[in-house]
Amino acid sequence: MPRVVSKNSEKTDNHLVNVLQIKDAKAGRVRITLIDYDESNLVEKEITHIQECKVFREKQTVTWINVDGIHKLDIIDDLGRIFDLHPLILESITTKNQRPKIEDFGNYIFVILKMLHYDEKHARVNGEQVSIVLGHNFVLSFQESKGEVFNPIRGWIRNNKGKIRKMGADYLMYSLIDAVVDNYFVILERLGEKIECLEEALVNNPKPETLGIIHRIKKDMIFMRKSVWPLREVIAALERIGSPLIRKSTQLYLKDVYDHTIQVIDTIEESRDMLSGMTDIYLSSLSNRLNEVMKVLTVIATIFIPLTFITGVYGMNFRYMPELESRLGYPGAWLVMLLIAIIMLIYFRRRKWV
Amino acid sequence: MPRVVSKNSEKTDNHLVNVLQIKDAKAGRVRITLIDYDESNLVEKEITHIQECKVFREKQTVTWINVDGIHKLDIIDDLGRIFDLHPLILESITTKNQRPKIEDFGNYIFVILKMLHYDEKHARVNGEQVSIVLGHNFVLSFQESKGEVFNPIRGWIRNNKGKIRKMGADYLMYSLIDAVVDNYFVILERLGEKIECLEEALVNNPKPETLGIIHRIKKDMIFMRKSVWPLREVIAALERIGSPLIRKSTQLYLKDVYDHTIQVIDTIEESRDMLSGMTDIYLSSLSNRLNEVMKVLTVIATIFIPLTFITGVYGMNFRYMPELESRLGYPGAWLVMLLIAIIMLIYFRRRKWV
Amino acid sequence: MPRVVSKNSEKTDNHLVNVLQIKDAKAGRVRITLIDYDESNLVEKEITHIQECKVFREKQTVTWINVDGIHKLDIIDDLGRIFDLHPLILESITTKNQRPKIEDFGNYIFVILKMLHYDEKHARVNGEQVSIVLGHNFVLSFQESKGEVFNPIRGWIRNNKGKIRKMGADYLMYSLIDAVVDNYFVILERLGEKIECLEEALVNNPKPETLGIIHRIKKDMIFMRKSVWPLREVIAALERIGSPLIRKSTQLYLKDVYDHTIQVIDTIEESRDMLSGMTDIYLSSLSNRLNEVMKVLTVIATIFIPLTFITGVYGMNFRYMPELESRLGYPGAWLVMLLIAIIMLIYFRRRKWV
Amino acid sequence: MPRVVSKNSEKTDNHLVNVLQIKDAKAGRVRITLIDYDESNLVEKEITHIQECKVFREKQTVTWINVDGIHKLDIIDDLGRIFDLHPLILESITTKNQRPKIEDFGNYIFVILKMLHYDEKHARVNGEQVSIVLGHNFVLSFQESKGEVFNPIRGWIRNNKGKIRKMGADYLMYSLIDAVVDNYFVILERLGEKIECLEEALVNNPKPETLGIIHRIKKDMIFMRKSVWPLREVIAALERIGSPLIRKSTQLYLKDVYDHTIQVIDTIEESRDMLSGMTDIYLSSLSNRLNEVMKVLTVIATIFIPLTFITGVYGMNFRYMPELESRLGYPGAWLVMLLIAIIMLIYFRRRKWV
Amino acid sequence: MPRVVSKNSEKTDNHLVNVLQIKDAKAGRVRITLIDYDESNLVEKEITHIQECKVFREKQTVTWINVDGIHKLDIIDDLGRIFDLHPLILESITTKNQRPKIEDFGNYIFVILKMLHYDEKHARVNGEQVSIVLGHNFVLSFQESKGEVFNPIRGWIRNNKGKIRKMGADYLMYSLIDAVVDNYFVILERLGEKIECLEEALVNNPKPETLGIIHRIKKDMIFMRKSVWPLREVIAALERIGSPLIRKSTQLYLKDVYDHTIQVIDTIEESRDMLSGMTDIYLSSLSNRLNEVMKVLTVIATIFIPLTFITGVYGMNFRYMPELESRLGYPGAWLVMLLIAIIMLIYFRRRKWV
Repeated sequence: MPRVVSKNSEKTDNHLVNVLQIKDAKAGRVRITLIDYDESNLVEKEITHIQECKVFREKQTVTWINVDGIHKLDIIDDLGRIFDLHPLILESITTKNQRPKIEDFGNYIFVILKMLHYDEKHARVNGEQVSIVLGHNFVLSFQESKGEVFNPIRGWIRNNKGKIRKMGADYLMYSLIDAVVDNYFVILERLGEKIECLEEALVNNPKPETLGIIHRIKKDMIFMRKSVWPLREVIAALERIGSPLIRKSTQLYLKDVYDHTIQVIDTIEESRDMLSGMTDIYLSSLSNRLNEVMKVLTVIATIFIPLTFITGVYGMNFRYMPELESRLGYPGAWLVMLLIAIIMLIYFRRRKWV
Repeated sequence: MPRVVSKNSEKTDNHLVNVLQIKDAKAGRVRITLIDYDESNLVEKEITHIQECKVFREKQTVTWINVDGIHKLDIIDDLGRIFDLHPLILESITTKNQRPKIEDFGNYIFVILKMLHYDEKHARVNGEQVSIVLGHNFVLSFQESKGEVFNPIRGWIRNNKGKIRKMGADYLMYSLIDAVVDNYFVILERLGEKIECLEEALVNNPKPETLGIIHRIKKDMIFMRKSVWPLREVIAALERIGSPLIRKSTQLYLKDVYDHTIQVIDTIEESRDMLSGMTDIYLSSLSNRLNEVMKVLTVIATIFIPLTFITGVYGMNFRYMPELESRLGYPGAWLVMLLIAIIMLIYFRRRKWV
Repeated sequence: MPRVVSKNSEKTDNHLVNVLQIKDAKAGRVRITLIDYDESNLVEKEITHIQECKVFREKQTVTWINVDGIHKLDIIDDLGRIFDLHPLILESITTKNQRPKIEDFGNYIFVILKMLHYDEKHARVNGEQVSIVLGHNFVLSFQESKGEVFNPIRGWIRNNKGKIRKMGADYLMYSLIDAVVDNYFVILERLGEKIECLEEALVNNPKPETLGIIHRIKKDMIFMRKSVWPLREVIAALERIGSPLIRKSTQLYLKDVYDHTIQVIDTIEESRDMLSGMTDIYLSSLSNRLNEVMKVLTVIATIFIPLTFITGVYGMNFRYMPELESRLGYPGAWLVMLLIAIIMLIYFRRRKWV
Repeated sequence: MPRVVSKNSEKTDNHLVNVLQIKDAKAGRVRITLIDYDESNLVEKEITHIQECKVFREKQTVTWINVDGIHKLDIIDDLGRIFDLHPLILESITTKNQRPKIEDFGNYIFVILKMLHYDEKHARVNGEQVSIVLGHNFVLSFQESKGEVFNPIRGWIRNNKGKIRKMGADYLMYSLIDAVVDNYFVILERLGEKIECLEEALVNNPKPETLGIIHRIKKDMIFMRKSVWPLREVIAALERIGSPLIRKSTQLYLKDVYDHTIQVIDTIEESRDMLSGMTDIYLSSLSNRLNEVMKVLTVIATIFIPLTFITGVYGMNFRYMPELESRLGYPGAWLVMLLIAIIMLIYFRRRKWV
Repeated sequence: MPRVVSKNSEKTDNHLVNVLQIKDAKAGRVRITLIDYDESNLVEKEITHIQECKVFREKQTVTWINVDGIHKLDIIDDLGRIFDLHPLILESITTKNQRPKIEDFGNYIFVILKMLHYDEKHARVNGEQVSIVLGHNFVLSFQESKGEVFNPIRGWIRNNKGKIRKMGADYLMYSLIDAVVDNYFVILERLGEKIECLEEALVNNPKPETLGIIHRIKKDMIFMRKSVWPLREVIAALERIGSPLIRKSTQLYLKDVYDHTIQVIDTIEESRDMLSGMTDIYLSSLSNRLNEVMKVLTVIATIFIPLTFITGVYGMNFRYMPELESRLGYPGAWLVMLLIAIIMLIYFRRRKWV
């Protein structure tokens, strides 16, 4: 029943809160593409009437239907009816910001994952929900908006590159998941570069903004972990699930993606450790600079305050001050002041303040 | 035997300490409502004499009795006798601030959960205990005070919306739990908005109060986690329990609520990470401002202290001071002072303090 | 062989170190009370000669022997011989500061727990070891000193209140454990009140002592956790142990105590989270106050240091200083100084330091 | 093949790095003592020729051979040949700084543990490796250097105290392990006393060295945990291993040692929590003292800087300054200065700085 | 499909990001060496044509082929064809920066591990991927570049030292892994020495760079943990895997390496604890120094500011100032100033600032 909640949560765009919202893409058109292939044949078309899909369902060839845009509930519902999907699945597909999960319904397997993009403009990581249904000889995939992550796979199918045309629908699903996970590495690399820049900036020229940027990257890392951590379980479940829909030969490939998700998680944890170490360095560099400032003030003040006192003494207007009358008074005063200054400087040099 | 303890703990209203107390709602009336339905029939009434419930127990229709107010022990006891509840359950229902838990007594299942409200006035999250008993064809629900969270469910039953009228008592219990969990998202969203505001305030204008507000939200998050964490286990147990009271078809829905509780927990952990990052930023902004203040003081002081020393020198009253007699004395002094000031400024500019 | 160690560790009274010591109660008398009951009969007496217990062992009534004071090894040894206890148990009973544990010897079960007291005078939590032996129709309990926690249970037995007289020795043991656990809530409440006071003090008037008090409460929380955490496992083991000494009906009650220990642990963890948040607030309030102090110093110093320089200039004794001769010199100097002061104040107002 | 590494790691004496080194005791003699006993007979002798041991191996009495010094590889090898030990064991015995572990070779069990000493001179905890081989009717024990921890056991055997002479080789091994674990408590007590001293020092008179001492104790705690944590698993394995070499009656005693190791671990964790709390207190006391220092400076400076400005004003040499001529000028100036000082003091009193 | 990603990630050399890249060794030649041995025979040669290996595969002697350089994909492919390796393995071998893992393909076992080097020039730990394939009577090993870690093993085989010539291919694989793990200890020792140096530096002369070095070592520790942690699981799996390729006698040796990896992990965790303690000490030493600086400033300023005020008073030019005319005026002023200075010094001495 999450749809109830979702209505009043549309306004905010925060990672934390938008847990169940349905945010309609503005004026978004839903685009449905179909690729139907086996080793020797290939059909690729854009679907305009959802009932066109029906024919392909019966065929023994692998059918991949990709839906860009999940805001038109009626289209999803129609597709669900053609492929006999449970209503809860249709609800899951159209409810954004769900946790990656897998559900095995016997004659099809339903997987939700998170595709991530690095938004260079706002310097933050964005997420998009991808739902995949694997059935007998068909794969349905749903994206929130048109993306480019699946394009290489389309290319391999078109050009019969690699073994994708020789394998079944399960290998196609593996390829989709693998494309999503590979994309995580691209983002990690982008964030890693930013961390490296920050590390250099910390040493050479720490600024008040630095901590804000560290915090921003930390948030991105938390967001990524939230996406990848459950994905690990999802892929492990896919491997173990023992469904007839997933062949033995594909399991080996799934184990490979599994290893990649572990690597992503390792890298995220590593970065978080590193980032908290950087916070310490930043805070200590602030202290160091305060120390520097205070040393300058202290050195100047402690040298000149006693000297000024002496000038004050001989600026007094008492009638009877023997020193004032003496010829040696003025040079003597200078001598005393010089001595004081030198002693002070020696003291500061010993303490390594100068 | 917790009732022994509870008596002397009524005075305090602290999350930490009121673990077992019974705090009587002031002058609270107990309100009992009964809804009895199947697909075609519906009876809805307010119960004044507890014995009225007896008739409905025997009927094959689904009976939902909701009790608002748990401070009148005799009413709970009477109800317990009608539905054959174990004395320990009755004690649990009337003892506030219990940990969410599930107990399977064979012919009925007993569940305790925590309903949360965001109290805008005191800007804090409050909790209320909800106890649910699921038996054969009946559901009993107990709330500490009259709330509105279950109203949509009443509406669906009245208007025969969704499939609730077609399903059994187990689906009704699922709906109640789902309503409670969905409400958590509303609160998380409210807290998320506050965190977002704080983040902006931290960057633009950090104030001493900020850390207090962060601490307040942290406390709310700890309080929520304490409520949701055991709930996760409760729902998992409900799924696995294998009780004949819970049908196969409902288990799928329970899995859905389970996923939602995980999402709530994820979001809480995420927020806590974020909040502790914000504490760091706040502390560093304090240091930064101290640095700013000290720099201003140091620049002003280190420029003027030497100059004042020079004026002090020529304010001395020695009889024999050759400079004083010279026509160039006064402009010369100004020149020296200007030079010192300029050298100092160049030094500070190099250090980027000006 | 812990007795070897214990001898040279008597001097210290520290939570950390007194892990195995036997600290003789000063001039303590051992007091042994016996209560023997079934539903209709009740014998209550103070034992002076340990052999009096023998008669009660044979009877089919429930016999509860409570020993206050564990420093007289011969008494414990005699009792052990009458009830056929293993030497390791006798050693455990007389060795203070053991970890809560359970051991099942077949014909009796041995449990060690920790009774806690809040010592208002030293404002700290103290612990006392309680050992319980549950055998067929008898319960032996050993306390370090005379306490009042078991008094309500004595009252219930005497006045035949509740079902305790109808139940067996296992229910008696449950009641003793429950009394100990309920007492934890009282202490948590006391500590919770102190935390609440501290929180207010932190906001209104933080003092150097505050952190000391936070540390003190943290230590108490660590001490409590050390006592309660293993108790949780002990009670879980009691539930699962499948001993014929523990009836089915009592297991339900044990589950209830188990839930309470979990709640105690939750509350302890919650408090610790809260306390570490409070340390942050305290430290930041120190920084805030330093900032305040420094701002005042900086404002005063940066306004008056330039002004004092100007007065210094016109206090110089150069013979040729045109300004000194002018009628407008003095008011002009005032004007310049006022201007400087105003500009400074505007600058500080902009920076929000005034 | 760790011997390869060990050669070039002899120079350092750091807990962290000396993981596999063999550090020859300087000019150390290897001392081998043999005790052979049953309930009625006792032979105790120092072994000079390793072949003397052979006779005792065949006897049905319990034979305990203790080797002080593990740097003479040939002696260990000879002994290994007599008792049929696997080469890997001999390597383990002579390789220092191994992790506590247990290995069951069927006809003998091999255990490595860590004996700890508190080195009062350097105020640090040192470790020494103890290897124990339990076979049928024999126990071999290997220490790095001559220690006193096993002396009480020798005493019990000589004087037939306790049941050690009545029990088998397994009980002897238990006694050795128990002696090692009991010694941990002595060290914990010593460290606990130091922590208590530190706590008082923190409150009354924190010094820069304090944090160094805290760090030193933390290191010791980490070192102890590294020794005790795997020991826990070793003893648990000994209990569970189901080897015919360990009798049922001894298992009860092993459970007792197991409980003690848990207690040691608990105490270590407790101490570490406490120590990190103390670091916070120390850091805050530094801040507090800085605040104190700054308040004194600020109060003195802000009171006298304006006053000095006023004296500066009337120290100017303008020809036309009406106040200077007035009889009330001087007392008036004093009045103004007193007023300013009083206003400042009231302001500081309000802010609680004075 | 990681090869897709790897192409555009070649530019960076960061631990964090280079997760899947293939970085071609500059102008690197691939060097293939073959050692074929049994107890009595030994063939050692450098392979120039990959087909030479074919003959050795059929022989019953142990064949070890080591490949230095993994950037020539065709060579790896050829080798793969000769030894019937799965394409996924070949991809894993040539993809750098993989997580240590093990895969059992029935007739061969595939292991990836991480060899570490301490790069003295950049003062950082570098990693290199080592892949090992264990088949029936053959071992293939792949390194990124020519290293020296396997040289001792080559020596043992050549000189028939130890039992390596008497054992099978599984013992050879064990020896390779053992060499890699032993090398970890060398690096830990190097890092341990650096930590020891840092600890001394922290106490005697903390510098701003210190925290940077701590951060650097922390990063190395995180990097090592990332390499060793999964290796632990790999070796545990090797032990448990029950493959006919690994003999019983070798399992004992694998358990030994396993213990070593645990020790490495323990030491890494220990170091990390120590390093974070050192950060605290560093930060507190900064505070201490600030305190020192501020005390000097405060003492000098608070002594001389009041004195300067007094000289200011008697430097005023009021016509009517009785003190100025008195003979005792000047010495009296000195007396007052001396008194003030002495009182101040006593006050500071009491506060232990002097």
